[in-house]
Amino acid sequence: MDESDNENTSPTLGVGMVGYAFMGAAHSQGWRTAGRVFDLPLAPVMAAVCGRDPVAVRAAARQHGWAAAETDWRALVARDDVQLVDICTPGDSHAEIAIAALEAGKHVLCEKPLANTVAEAEAMVAAAHAARERGQLAMVGFNYRRVPALALARRMIAEGRIGALRHVRVTYLQDWLTDPGAPLVWRLQREHAGSGALGDLGAHAVDIAQHLAGEPLVGVSALTETFVKERPLPGGAGHGLAAAPDGGAARGLVTVDDAAVFTGRLASGALAAFEVTRVAAGRKNALRIELNGELGSLAFDLERLNELSFHDHTEDASVSGFRRILATEPGHPYLEAWWPPGHGLGYEHTFVHQVRDLVHAVAEGTEPAPSFEDGLQVQRVLAAVEESAEKNALYTAVPPVSPAVTALA
Amino acid sequence: MDESDNENTSPTLGVGMVGYAFMGAAHSQGWRTAGRVFDLPLAPVMAAVCGRDPVAVRAAARQHGWAAAETDWRALVARDDVQLVDICTPGDSHAEIAIAALEAGKHVLCEKPLANTVAEAEAMVAAAHAARERGQLAMVGFNYRRVPALALARRMIAEGRIGALRHVRVTYLQDWLTDPGAPLVWRLQREHAGSGALGDLGAHAVDIAQHLAGEPLVGVSALTETFVKERPLPGGAGHGLAAAPDGGAARGLVTVDDAAVFTGRLASGALAAFEVTRVAAGRKNALRIELNGELGSLAFDLERLNELSFHDHTEDASVSGFRRILATEPGHPYLEAWWPPGHGLGYEHTFVHQVRDLVHAVAEGTEPAPSFEDGLQVQRVLAAVEESAEKNALYTAVPPVSPAVTALA
Amino acid sequence: MDESDNENTSPTLGVGMVGYAFMGAAHSQGWRTAGRVFDLPLAPVMAAVCGRDPVAVRAAARQHGWAAAETDWRALVARDDVQLVDICTPGDSHAEIAIAALEAGKHVLCEKPLANTVAEAEAMVAAAHAARERGQLAMVGFNYRRVPALALARRMIAEGRIGALRHVRVTYLQDWLTDPGAPLVWRLQREHAGSGALGDLGAHAVDIAQHLAGEPLVGVSALTETFVKERPLPGGAGHGLAAAPDGGAARGLVTVDDAAVFTGRLASGALAAFEVTRVAAGRKNALRIELNGELGSLAFDLERLNELSFHDHTEDASVSGFRRILATEPGHPYLEAWWPPGHGLGYEHTFVHQVRDLVHAVAEGTEPAPSFEDGLQVQRVLAAVEESAEKNALYTAVPPVSPAVTALA
Amino acid sequence: MDESDNENTSPTLGVGMVGYAFMGAAHSQGWRTAGRVFDLPLAPVMAAVCGRDPVAVRAAARQHGWAAAETDWRALVARDDVQLVDICTPGDSHAEIAIAALEAGKHVLCEKPLANTVAEAEAMVAAAHAARERGQLAMVGFNYRRVPALALARRMIAEGRIGALRHVRVTYLQDWLTDPGAPLVWRLQREHAGSGALGDLGAHAVDIAQHLAGEPLVGVSALTETFVKERPLPGGAGHGLAAAPDGGAARGLVTVDDAAVFTGRLASGALAAFEVTRVAAGRKNALRIELNGELGSLAFDLERLNELSFHDHTEDASVSGFRRILATEPGHPYLEAWWPPGHGLGYEHTFVHQVRDLVHAVAEGTEPAPSFEDGLQVQRVLAAVEESAEKNALYTAVPPVSPAVTALA
Repeated sequence: MDESDNENTSPTLGVGMVGYAFMGAAHSQGWRTAGRVFDLPLAPVMAAVCGRDPVAVRAAARQHGWAAAETDWRALVARDDVQLVDICTPGDSHAEIAIAALEAGKHVLCEKPLANTVAEAEAMVAAAHAARERGQLAMVGFNYRRVPALALARRMIAEGRIGALRHVRVTYLQDWLTDPGAPLVWRLQREHAGSGALGDLGAHAVDIAQHLAGEPLVGVSALTETFVKERPLPGGAGHGLAAAPDGGAARGLVTVDDAAVFTGRLASGALAAFEVTRVAAGRKNALRIELNGELGSLAFDLERLNELSFHDHTEDASVSGFRRILATEPGHPYLEAWWPPGHGLGYEHTFVHQVRDLVHAVAEGTEPAPSFEDGLQVQRVLAAVEESAEKNALYTAVPPVSPAVTALA
Repeated sequence: MDESDNENTSPTLGVGMVGYAFMGAAHSQGWRTAGRVFDLPLAPVMAAVCGRDPVAVRAAARQHGWAAAETDWRALVARDDVQLVDICTPGDSHAEIAIAALEAGKHVLCEKPLANTVAEAEAMVAAAHAARERGQLAMVGFNYRRVPALALARRMIAEGRIGALRHVRVTYLQDWLTDPGAPLVWRLQREHAGSGALGDLGAHAVDIAQHLAGEPLVGVSALTETFVKERPLPGGAGHGLAAAPDGGAARGLVTVDDAAVFTGRLASGALAAFEVTRVAAGRKNALRIELNGELGSLAFDLERLNELSFHDHTEDASVSGFRRILATEPGHPYLEAWWPPGHGLGYEHTFVHQVRDLVHAVAEGTEPAPSFEDGLQVQRVLAAVEESAEKNALYTAVPPVSPAVTALA
Repeated sequence: MDESDNENTSPTLGVGMVGYAFMGAAHSQGWRTAGRVFDLPLAPVMAAVCGRDPVAVRAAARQHGWAAAETDWRALVARDDVQLVDICTPGDSHAEIAIAALEAGKHVLCEKPLANTVAEAEAMVAAAHAARERGQLAMVGFNYRRVPALALARRMIAEGRIGALRHVRVTYLQDWLTDPGAPLVWRLQREHAGSGALGDLGAHAVDIAQHLAGEPLVGVSALTETFVKERPLPGGAGHGLAAAPDGGAARGLVTVDDAAVFTGRLASGALAAFEVTRVAAGRKNALRIELNGELGSLAFDLERLNELSFHDHTEDASVSGFRRILATEPGHPYLEAWWPPGHGLGYEHTFVHQVRDLVHAVAEGTEPAPSFEDGLQVQRVLAAVEESAEKNALYTAVPPVSPAVTALA
Repeated sequence: MDESDNENTSPTLGVGMVGYAFMGAAHSQGWRTAGRVFDLPLAPVMAAVCGRDPVAVRAAARQHGWAAAETDWRALVARDDVQLVDICTPGDSHAEIAIAALEAGKHVLCEKPLANTVAEAEAMVAAAHAARERGQLAMVGFNYRRVPALALARRMIAEGRIGALRHVRVTYLQDWLTDPGAPLVWRLQREHAGSGALGDLGAHAVDIAQHLAGEPLVGVSALTETFVKERPLPGGAGHGLAAAPDGGAARGLVTVDDAAVFTGRLASGALAAFEVTRVAAGRKNALRIELNGELGSLAFDLERLNELSFHDHTEDASVSGFRRILATEPGHPYLEAWWPPGHGLGYEHTFVHQVRDLVHAVAEGTEPAPSFEDGLQVQRVLAAVEESAEKNALYTAVPPVSPAVTALA
């Protein structure tokens, strides 16, 4: 058979990605796979990846399947074969790259959290707002919205299946800092990471809570804690910390939180309770969410991501109870393209789904979600959490993200 | 065989119980059963039960196996055949009865919460303090300490198995007020119940958290909410609420909380997170507790009360994980006297265990736990929660319960 | 108040119990408690308990609350104050005692298995049949039918909620013989125990499967195994085994099965799969049952005895899944008399329920279930299992228990 | 940056795949992804895919990323750019294609079951044996061996962590034939599918049981059943069944089993129990496996594929119990290349792992597992199951797969 027949004649979408660590690997899997599984209106082309180390970025390009490698993100943004810039760098560089990419006429997908500060996030929203008028899209990467079980939860809530909301409770528990001997990596330094468990895990927790509830937090009260105040410096130099004269015994100050507990109110008056931590021994990635409404409840645990628990409170009490829905049915979100019932998906499928939805939005000119405004709103919640923690847990309002704010910025 | 041989010649402990509703039934089961299962140093004698309605209390005596019935608690307290008074009335009468019983030279077991106010609880502690010098004992009925799985948890924590504590999280979720049409029973009126979910469920949650942790809460921050502000009056009169002219449509104000979310710090610096509610659809009696320490974690759910989850963080990560310990082994607390492994116990066994431990304390002259001081301490936490809720969630210190306080009272 | 008012004027039912070990303790709890919790038409009176050792039986009477003690079961059966004989001895004495009691005009409750042989069971059925015409009742103690979750399962199946049955699978897994050093107790000797896991656990498994299905097994195919062929003799004499000259090292032959796996067909054509074992490390009392029908499925695990899992296959697949029904609602079987929702029951509550149902049957002259015929039917299944195991797993029919058979016996 | 730098200079392995339905999609994902995640010694090149329908196969090539499309499998086998043939067709064509490919000097990966008959499987083993001497490899696609939790289970068993094996129990439950109105697809016709649940699910169940146990089944006893004997013909023609004159009402005979229950013995004397069915309402893909040994137990459920349950019976009974190991740690099989702990994998990752291991075997000249001999052994077990089912469940020996057998074939 003539192999020249085997051409994909779909229009394409050239993608350039900045950063190629954990998130870069996950996003690459998304770009590489989405068009193989879903029927996309545009074929993503993995045009170039960017990183500062020329040898490492070339190796990353080869490994992950990017056609070219760049060492300067400005060069990547400037490439003609890049119509969308995917930002997978740490949070402190998001604003600069995203704004430049939008100003250069590119669509942008930016990893969460949108930025390390509210001010940066506001500037990004303003840039997105301006770009939108030119037909460019901007999306923030809260990938957990695209876990099928959580997308199903959102659909069920939107259908009214749990009724008026009473409670949202979210814990996001990890344990990789349980050992006091774990080293002082950059994630534990405020100047690089912005915050600790709060920004890393709390951003996910707040976004998914608001997304599922379909309404924002309007105020919060918080306590934060750093249980281990000093940690050993990692081996090797270059971490911006003075090494101890004797080498191995050198220790540095931890300047971010290990954990945060916070409560809040949603716009409807529902109560919210959050806990995020990296020192919950034995909990590996326990993003657990429960919503209780007047007509029912939903519960989810990211460690069992193919399952959604649902209690229908309108049923006869004698036969009701939390049911385990395996979110692998053809009628479930994203499942039209995957495997038969009971053949579960994994973590990185969320990135495939993210690409699917973003490519559809680009092709159809619709607004992708979560938007930069959504990302800003999460930042404002986190800022209110930090402010409350500094004010002895005083209940602190979360300013709304209005079109006016965006226009002003 | 001569049936006169069949006498129990153990010394006895005469018990008088005040109140015979839900708690009275459960306590009766405890008094009736403990000596049949455990080898007790004193044989409990169910001397008399007390209630205001003479017909009902006689029926209750017959049903539950009390030898006599009284309609005046003062008469019960005065009986010569009563050495221990067991108080199962609502919280607003605890102080008066307990103090009178102690002053009459009786031992006292008082249901939780110790009292509806801190002032009452302080007076009770003072009375207990004075009585103790005369050899009388006073105990408060936080029965969940005597769920074998939780007693095992306490033992493991005391042995150091989870190391320095980082987190305690407790939810106590019920759903019997989910329906806005549920009637305005006395439990929803502040003048009778003191508070809502907070006093009822929060008292248990706070006691078990502090008991397991082995240390007190030193401060809290709280939000409370009453989602359904008005409810239909229950059928019939006598609830102290004006009936609507048209009967069925009459509604009254709910004056207690439906739910409370609160955070706090323990003396060691560990963070605590609490949520108590009666509107969590589908959660029937979900007292869930998790403690994370530097060396391990423990988790429990009252809806599966024979199980304790334990993660040993000192093990090789490749084979570690939360294990489900069935707390039904002969070596587990209280299990020496029950059934073979895997043959689970139920809710009311906690009352049997409570009797066992209290009878041992009486016989041996040791201090029973939880003491009235423990009950007072819980009241102070709940008072601080209410104060914080009134002050916009401001972090509010919990005054310690010291011997000095007790002496002053 | 005049204490003479406090008399229970209900008619009574005098009970005599033979045997006072594990089952005797559990049955005592049932007799002692049922009338305190349920509203019974007859008040059980614990007249006398019987055992061979005069000192021990008197101690047992005192401990468990029996008014008198006997050392000869014939004397117990003959007592005027005994109207019902409760047989808690090992299986090899069931037939003799039960038949004598029935012939003496007593009602009989006999622990499972009904007998050690089919012939004995047939004789017991014949005696029960004759006694029934004189108004006496006979019941066999398959107590698991009275776990509320399983009674609920039976009710739901009878209502048609799972439709035409396709599969029943039952495992009953324990682990107390996992250690090859566990001693050769009488339960491991055929002459005393009849069989091993098969008679002990298999009897329960078969009864509950047939009871839930509402139909009998008509044929079986089986493999059995004794993994540890020799075990150390227990310390002390009197076990009927020759002691080794050197004491501790003495070993004897295990003459019963450690485990059995068997399959079968029910009358309707549904397939059945069974596994019973005492060497499943970590499984303490794992009686697990699942039934799959054309319209739904039910699942249960005795280690979580307050829960019933139900899948309703008639629901939309997008929201269906196994739901966890907490069998603690007021509308659930036996729950009208216990605690609020979510306050779980334990193992021994099944014996309280058994007494409740038996006392009602006696008072109302109705036929109690499970009957001796039911017990015989289970024995025939177990005999067919043993026969199949001897014939290289050949499918072996289970003879039905018909009125004719009963009449012949 | 010069994009010509971005070349992958690894040696390559040209792959041709026959069939592109469910398994083809899954295998494509494996070939496409393995080299992006793992560091492979050979870079797989997706040279060509083959199918009978020229339009459809070209679409499949485009979708799944194969460079060329073929409509004749012989042409695919003959291609110079194909060094390995991956067979994803139904079982009745496996033997012909695999033998031809091996004879053409290609490596072969063949989906399970190896063949529809023992005779075909024996011929394939003979061909593989001959090819091996020429340096070609042959592997059968029992992908569940490469679920990390199951690979971990195998590792733990090989390390002796559960000791001498006593029990293996496996259920593989699905529900897609529960509805009697489900159509008579080719999978329900013996001439196309060989058998029903037995060949489809039983092959997986038997392979994983033997693989984990590390030993073969030596005999089996079985019952099989077809609950729904007739089903409606699928819409449209071409299913090889006479259409009813009136169209919609046409029904045809189901000629394969809906379900099978079977027991067996492993070489060591351990007992095995199996159940496979497509009519277990609510069970979507419930491959559940438990192994009990003298020192511990392991349990797994494919519906929660990132988890392995382990009970260590050597621990103190007071703190022991089944622990849930999240098989997502860096030290777990295949996890060195994926995501952080707790970020679960999905079903299709097994195909990525299969490619990884096969490519290593090709590059290193080692024998891949499972071999064709392993596939033949499974066929012999399934044949013995069918034979036993025909002989009234009589225990039927499974002939061993010896080198001699292979040489003779």
